[in-house]
Order: sequence, then structure tokens, then C-alpha cells
Amino acid sequence: MTDYKDRFSEDVGNFFRSPVREIFKRVDLNAIFSFAGGYPHASTFPLDDIRELSSLVIDKYGAKAFQYGATQGVPELRQAVAERCKVDVERVQITTSSQQGIDVCTRVLVDPGDVILTSNPTYLGALQSFRSYRADVRAVKVTDADADQKIGAIIAEGKKIKFYYIIPDFQNPSGETMSLEDRKTLVALAEKYDFLIVEDSPYRELRYEGVDVETIYSLAPDRTLHLGSFSKIFAPGFRLGWILGAPELLDKIYVCKQSLDLCPPIFDQYLAAEFLTSGRLDANLKNSIDLYRTKRDHLLGLLEKYMPEGVTWTHPEGGLFLFLNLPEGFDSVKFYDKSLDAGVAYVAGSFFHVDGSGLNTMRMNFSFLAMERMEEGVQILSRLISEEISK
Amino acid sequence: MTDYKDRFSEDVGNFFRSPVREIFKRVDLNAIFSFAGGYPHASTFPLDDIRELSSLVIDKYGAKAFQYGATQGVPELRQAVAERCKVDVERVQITTSSQQGIDVCTRVLVDPGDVILTSNPTYLGALQSFRSYRADVRAVKVTDADADQKIGAIIAEGKKIKFYYIIPDFQNPSGETMSLEDRKTLVALAEKYDFLIVEDSPYRELRYEGVDVETIYSLAPDRTLHLGSFSKIFAPGFRLGWILGAPELLDKIYVCKQSLDLCPPIFDQYLAAEFLTSGRLDANLKNSIDLYRTKRDHLLGLLEKYMPEGVTWTHPEGGLFLFLNLPEGFDSVKFYDKSLDAGVAYVAGSFFHVDGSGLNTMRMNFSFLAMERMEEGVQILSRLISEEISK
Repeated sequence: MTDYKDRFSEDVGNFFRSPVREIFKRVDLNAIFSFAGGYPHASTFPLDDIRELSSLVIDKYGAKAFQYGATQGVPELRQAVAERCKVDVERVQITTSSQQGIDVCTRVLVDPGDVILTSNPTYLGALQSFRSYRADVRAVKVTDADADQKIGAIIAEGKKIKFYYIIPDFQNPSGETMSLEDRKTLVALAEKYDFLIVEDSPYRELRYEGVDVETIYSLAPDRTLHLGSFSKIFAPGFRLGWILGAPELLDKIYVCKQSLDLCPPIFDQYLAAEFLTSGRLDANLKNSIDLYRTKRDHLLGLLEKYMPEGVTWTHPEGGLFLFLNLPEGFDSVKFYDKSLDAGVAYVAGSFFHVDGSGLNTMRMNFSFLAMERMEEGVQILSRLISEEISK
Repeated sequence: MTDYKDRFSEDVGNFFRSPVREIFKRVDLNAIFSFAGGYPHASTFPLDDIRELSSLVIDKYGAKAFQYGATQGVPELRQAVAERCKVDVERVQITTSSQQGIDVCTRVLVDPGDVILTSNPTYLGALQSFRSYRADVRAVKVTDADADQKIGAIIAEGKKIKFYYIIPDFQNPSGETMSLEDRKTLVALAEKYDFLIVEDSPYRELRYEGVDVETIYSLAPDRTLHLGSFSKIFAPGFRLGWILGAPELLDKIYVCKQSLDLCPPIFDQYLAAEFLTSGRLDANLKNSIDLYRTKRDHLLGLLEKYMPEGVTWTHPEGGLFLFLNLPEGFDSVKFYDKSLDAGVAYVAGSFFHVDGSGLNTMRMNFSFLAMERMEEGVQILSRLISEEISK
């Protein structure tokens, strides 16, 4: 028996592989100049804290830290997240990664053919999940003059719009932050056309300049599912995130999660709870922010210094990414092999585009690569781009 | 905005809550006589080992233990599982719990209306997952004389049978083990009617008497997805399991897992890999087996001593459960409140039945409750059952 092709569910036909993860399979990230993944810098992982907290959690919680636990998350972590986010604990569901948050929200809300609205570009991992449920993903920019009309036209098609998916803070991939006014516009559209908002906010606490903008959740708490993550404020290896939302929505997510994986990892949750409540998280976060600010500034300076005319980029106030715009006609997917051969990795911008557009864009991450290696990486990339442009 | 009911996907209509998890919400398991959950005994969690291994993993792997990792699982753990299971590493996918294993297999194989065959009773968490994808779950006992005919009739209905779900070793809930002959019968049926087999085997290594029966996977490695779990041989709090299967099947599961949660928890995977390869797992498992054998024997003795005439039970050779058959007409769902009021928890057998039958059965777990409290628990339960029967 070797033929499996007719055995799979219809969803499988819509699965697509993450090009980012495929890059990671091809190369050893530490051996090249990687501006590709959204990996935190290794030095931000609080190894000494984790060593101490591992012992502390075993002493304090004993066997409880290794037993099955509540599907909503252990009470200590739910409470700590509730306090940090200033919400009632009943509005907190701990997830096994914020990727799971995206997935489970889609699972409980979306049937094949239902519309999910999003910005263009948007997060690749969200597109993977949306497409896997055969959602009809449509790009509508909230600030476009015809946004209202576009959404109206989708409703007129007889489609159900289930939610608008947005990363308002230091977006992945663009690095851009949505203004308060635009957030209010989005909420007004959601109210007018009666859809929910999924606010994905893994980078929110990584701000290097400017001031916080109110979350969409705080503007419309009963209409918004807010996704948080420990990946960038603790470590991604723990696979912990959270969802804030109306109890009626969280209840379905809770039942779904029972059959997905019963409960999030318990030891990891206690480590996160202790890391947060002890104040260690804030101390460590301050250092991460200082490091990333320096790295962002360094990358911005290097692009200024080396990139040829005709290339522009965003200036992110926080997060892990900036976005390059290359001259019209540039194909960053084709160009990728050349770049990787020369030892430089990035992610082609078109992968983040709902409609496959954006061929002349690329996402650059500035958190992962060592500070002292960034210049050489940007030099190589800039030289190759110059050559390509002048062809 | 308070009305959410028309916003959910069709799948949600088929979600059902785990009655076992609902029990856990109602009571503090440590304050009652609990024969309910499938919780390992707290003393089997190797706290000292985990404390040492936490430090060791941080020393040995450093930041890598907290970074994002491969979707298939970290190479060290995949390799360790491959060696333990005597399969090629390409046939191993690490999962974030073996519940996720069930879920992801269903997701990639089953469309609404597709048939999943299983024994009756069967594992509740699997039923939750199957129903959530709107599968048509049918009970067919492999050993029944008309099994072949029944399956043929399902095919004749025009239905697609996607897989047979089975827990061949120390089944949850019955405690029964499938003979080699019956396994071969199942494989023959799978070949005849060309369906896959999902072999769920979380208890396989907890054998207290008798000898191992070959896995179904080893009989039909290209037709079987074998699910393993670290929950009973390490600790459930780590939420780690594995799937063994044909690379063509694992490839779809891999892509699906990217959008589910990117990768399993990394630190936990290194802890499990080191626990396994250092020989600590086998040493700890030996102690767990000795403890559970004693507890099983104790429970069997207590049932013999206290249960009234007309009540029978299974004699499990391993695992965590035995199954009680009460006289016809006994309603173990109704009876449950009375039992819980008196401080004794179990799980009503009908919850494990595909068709809601089995009202006169109950599942009893012998791993969780402290040895010295088992007699009082069985005494109370037996007295209540006697009263109920003689009504």
C-alpha cells in the first residue's frame, strides 16, 4: 500500500507549507546572515532565571506542575495575565502558543467559504491557518477611502464576514503600527457590518520609541479576540500565549481546546507565571527592548549606508521586522536563491500578500542576527540588489 | 453586543464537553475518593530527575532549548523515540500531547460524514475530536462474527471509511487488551476494505502481568498511524506525544501542525529526550509499574471483598483502568450525583459508548487515589451500589 492521495480530507488540499519554515530546513541559520525568521535574539532568553525558576516551581508546586491541568490554563498564569492586561480572569484563555490562538479562533468561527478580512500584507502563519479551513481571505485596507464600500460589496455577494484579522502593533511583516484613529475606524466598520475582530498582538510590548496606542480589544472588548504571546517577552520554546475575549466566545474555544490538546503545558505555565509575577519578566523585557532598539537603529543606518537608490523601507517603532520596497519589476522570490547562495536570508514579501502581489518587497528581521554580523549581511544583500536592479 | 450564537462554525454545533473534565471543575480531586480521571499517581513524577535535567538541558543546549524549533520535533527527541520504537526517524512526528495526535490525524483524514470505526466503548477524548469534525462514528467489534458484513454494509451505503480507531493495549475505558489474532483480523479487514488504522497506545508500557502483544503498527506499518504518549511514562504536564506512520501521511500532519502550533514545546522536548536517553525513564517506569501493579491488585481485592452480587469487572493486565458491569437497569449517570455527594468519583461508562449505551457500566481508575484511601472509597461506593440495586 503506497497510495495515500485519496485518503485526505478536503482541508488538506488547501494546506500550504510555510516558506519561512522551509528556509529553516535548508540552512543552518547560525551559519548564514539571517534576516529571515522572527526569532528572538538568543541573549534575551533568561537562562539563569529559568534555571532558578525550574527549582522554585518544583519546590512550590511539586507534582501539580507535572499533572494534567485545567483546559483554560493554570489559575496562577491566567490570573497573572489578567492582571497584566487589566481584564477579568474569566476573559483569559491560555493557549499552547499564539499560533494556536489563531487556529482555534478560526476553527470555532469559520466555515469553508466564509470571509476573513485582513490587511495586505499580513502574517503568513495566519494565512496558513485561514486557508487550511478554506476561508475566503480578502484584503481590505481600513484606511482606504473605499473600505466601507468594499466590505458592503462582499456582504452583497451573500458572504458571511466572520472577522477582520489584524496585527495593529509593529505589524508582521511591515513593521507598521496602526493609529488610534484607524483602530476606531476598524471598530466602526466591524459594528456597522457586524463582524468580529481578531487582534494579534505578539510584539506589543516591544516598543522602542513613541507611545502605546490603545488596543482594539480595549476599544471593543466584546467584539474583539485579542491574542497575546509569551514568545517575545519570555521565550518561544515554551509555546505559550493567551486569548482575551468575551466569555461566550472563550467558552467555545475552551471546549475546542479540550479535543485539541486537553491543556497547555503545565510546568511551562508555572515557569511563565513565576517569571511574570516575580518582576523578572519586566526586568528582562527592558533589556530586550534596549537590545532591539540598538539593533533596529543599526539596521536602519546600514540600509541608509548601503542600499542603492530606489529601495525604501519602513521605520518600525517596535517589533522585530522592517519591510523593504524594491523597484517595480524586482522579483524577490526569484532573487532569493542568489541571495542565499551568497549567505543572506530574508523572506520574500509576496508570501505575506493575500493575492500574491508584493513581488518587489522583502521582510527583514533585525532581532536574530548578531549585532556584529549585520553590516556584512547588509553589504552583501545591497550589492546583490544593486546588481539586480542595474541589469 | 451580546449575541454570539450565529457567529460560530458548523463544527461547533458538534462540540461536546468532556464529562470527565467537568467533574474536575466541580470538585477538588484530592479532597475526595477519586476513581475518575486517568491521572498518573503524583509519586511517579520524577521531580528530582526533572530538577537535575532542567539544569543539564540549560547547560547542554543553552538558548536553543528556548528558541523556536522544528515542526517535526527536536532531532534529539525524534531520534530517541525512533530508537525506542525501532522505527526510522523519518516515521516519527512529535506532537503536543497524544490528544493532538488524535486531533491532527482526524483533521487531515476526515471530512464531515466520513466514517470512523471504533470499538464500543472507546476513548472519550477521541469521540470529542471525531464528533467535532462531524465524523460519522460507528462501533464495529472486530471479533463479532458479522464484523465483515457490517463494514461491507457501511461501504454499500456509499460511505468512506477513513480509519479504525483502536486502543489495543489496556484499553481506555475497559482495561482490556486485544489478542494478536484479533489484531490480525483488524488488519485483514483494513486491507480488505482499504481503510487506515489509528492505534492509540498511551498505556502500552504499563504492563503488570503477561507479555507484550505485537503492535498493530508493526503488523501493518504503512496502514497504521501509531500514537504514543509521554504522559504515562514521564508526566502529562509536558504535553508530549508522538505519531509513527508512513512519511506520506506524516508529511500532511507536519504541514497541518505548522498552522496548529508551529512546533511542540522545546524545553520540554529536551527534558524528555534526556530523561529517555539517560536511562532514567526506564528506571522510573519500573517503579511506576510496581506501584500500579500493587494498586491494581489492591483494587481488585477490594472489589472482590465489598461489591455486591451482580457486579462484575474486568481484570486489566496493565494501564490505569478497569471497567465495572452493574446489573441491567442500573443508571450510572443518575447514580453519579449520589456517589459524588458521598465523596466518591468515577466516570459513567455510557460516556465512552458511541451510541450512549452502557448505562450500567462505570470506569474506575486505580492510578491516582492514594493506596491507603482506596479501601474506604470502595466501601462507600459498594454500599451505595448495594442500596441502589436492592431498591
